[in-house]
Amino acid sequence: MDIKKYTALIDGELSQIGFPDSPNQLYDPLRYFLQIGGKRIRPMLTLLGAELFGGTYEKAMSQALSIEVFHNFTLIHDDIMDEAPLRRNFQTIHEKWNRDVAILSGDVLMIKAYQLLGQIEGKLLPDAFALFNKTAIEVCEGQQMDMDFEQRSDVTIDEYIEMIRLKTSVLLGCALEMGAIVAEASSNDRALIYDFGQHIGIAFQIQDDILDLYANPDKFGKQVGGDVIANKKTMLHLTAVQNATKEQLEVLKQLQNEDNVELKVDRTRRLFDQLDIRSLCEARMQEHYDIAMQSLAKIEVEEAQKAKLIGLANFLMNREV
Amino acid sequence: MDIKKYTALIDGELSQIGFPDSPNQLYDPLRYFLQIGGKRIRPMLTLLGAELFGGTYEKAMSQALSIEVFHNFTLIHDDIMDEAPLRRNFQTIHEKWNRDVAILSGDVLMIKAYQLLGQIEGKLLPDAFALFNKTAIEVCEGQQMDMDFEQRSDVTIDEYIEMIRLKTSVLLGCALEMGAIVAEASSNDRALIYDFGQHIGIAFQIQDDILDLYANPDKFGKQVGGDVIANKKTMLHLTAVQNATKEQLEVLKQLQNEDNVELKVDRTRRLFDQLDIRSLCEARMQEHYDIAMQSLAKIEVEEAQKAKLIGLANFLMNREV
Repeated sequence: MDIKKYTALIDGELSQIGFPDSPNQLYDPLRYFLQIGGKRIRPMLTLLGAELFGGTYEKAMSQALSIEVFHNFTLIHDDIMDEAPLRRNFQTIHEKWNRDVAILSGDVLMIKAYQLLGQIEGKLLPDAFALFNKTAIEVCEGQQMDMDFEQRSDVTIDEYIEMIRLKTSVLLGCALEMGAIVAEASSNDRALIYDFGQHIGIAFQIQDDILDLYANPDKFGKQVGGDVIANKKTMLHLTAVQNATKEQLEVLKQLQNEDNVELKVDRTRRLFDQLDIRSLCEARMQEHYDIAMQSLAKIEVEEAQKAKLIGLANFLMNREV
Repeated sequence: MDIKKYTALIDGELSQIGFPDSPNQLYDPLRYFLQIGGKRIRPMLTLLGAELFGGTYEKAMSQALSIEVFHNFTLIHDDIMDEAPLRRNFQTIHEKWNRDVAILSGDVLMIKAYQLLGQIEGKLLPDAFALFNKTAIEVCEGQQMDMDFEQRSDVTIDEYIEMIRLKTSVLLGCALEMGAIVAEASSNDRALIYDFGQHIGIAFQIQDDILDLYANPDKFGKQVGGDVIANKKTMLHLTAVQNATKEQLEVLKQLQNEDNVELKVDRTRRLFDQLDIRSLCEARMQEHYDIAMQSLAKIEVEEAQKAKLIGLANFLMNREV
């Protein structure tokens, strides 16, 4: 099955998660939010993780949905904290309804994720539950670190990588390992596939930061340079800070206060180009991609079985949006 | 062991729940919030539920803490929604820190509740997990109904009872049944003890509404008539609306706009007394108390085993605060 078919399958299953009619202020927002789409990478990883170890994707479907539903819960609450008006060009829940609705429907969605997780063979539940809980806590820690970093001017690259690891990457590792648990893989294999997912996740997130400034504007769905305009401390920015001369640092600082956004983005890009920031970040991305592939290589299943996962990883690495 | 010893034991265990040092904006609020106290009724019910069916309280401790931690998560998020400045005379988290900290530390506390729940024998986890998830969703539904009711003027007494059942009482039933699960009680006994808890919970909540206006001011920890001043649609208010003549309804409506709070409380009490509201509400409370006791009576354990539970129920029913 190719990636598009998995996405369609997952979208179909998500739309069939039953929510009661009432209280409708609690459940309407969830019906709405789960329909606005997404790449569905996480649940796909769970299905592929199960297949890698000889399980069927059908058997891992509830756990795949659980991970996606949990991810959506984090988006709902993150959107409140970020005061984001839009998510994938749709109004966020706190905008379309209000803050309280977004808090409470987010809460109930997290519990729904646990309910879906629970649809697993009883003997597998303790492991699945422990992995899920550990990951969920880490994701919250990552979100807190992200918010803390906004207030700090001394964030190091290592701290930044640790933040994206927690906020984003552990859930990709968890998604894959969850599939492995359903397929009853060995604990060694479970650790390897988790590691693969985690490092692909870090590489993916660095790629995200690079694309913000270096994407093809014709294909990129968002404004190019959005992170630069918002003075976000991305991998590009932190790498620039680390490599800049005192004079260049001064220029960077001035650019943060530049009101002409076109000028701001262009000059920042020019400065980054002088410092070779794109290559430096791509090298760091490649590092994590390589670690991921080394972990995958150690898993003793037919190489053909790994093809889909490698395909998905390469798709994520070479995307333009 | 008497009730005070259980409370002290639970407080001790709660203070030993380990939270990491960092991110401290995530964990400091939780250390703070779990220390500000509370009646600890829910975890006590879990311990008593386990003992009722021949289990030890030690074996049920993690699950007891899980219920209390979940309860505290709901308080943190409810306080944001209610914009409450104080909880048990301590600043609420969103006041002492900010909204985002209260959302995210609440989220992580809910996950912590699941982690504590997971410290149960593997074979018991599926039942414990299913009960917990179902209850957690109901509690959110109850909170949403409570918020919906603020915007409505046609709330019936039955709807109100259903709201307090979901918002408060199911968690008491769940707490007791969780103890029964740990003690490996039969499904019939589990249903009976749940029912006991649920109806004691409803009776308790009606009692809460009655105490607001009829407590002894010297012993009551809060301002007497707080619900009246805030125009809350409590059991007293809804019963008055149902029994009032057209003229009395008009008086009640005018009183809601009265700025002199002392006058407002006194005149409302006088109107309620004319309508015998206190007795009507106490009768409704007694109904649920009786159903609870009937369920308890059907449980086939030594009557002496039930003494502590009956003691706790009577303590809750006859409290003055």
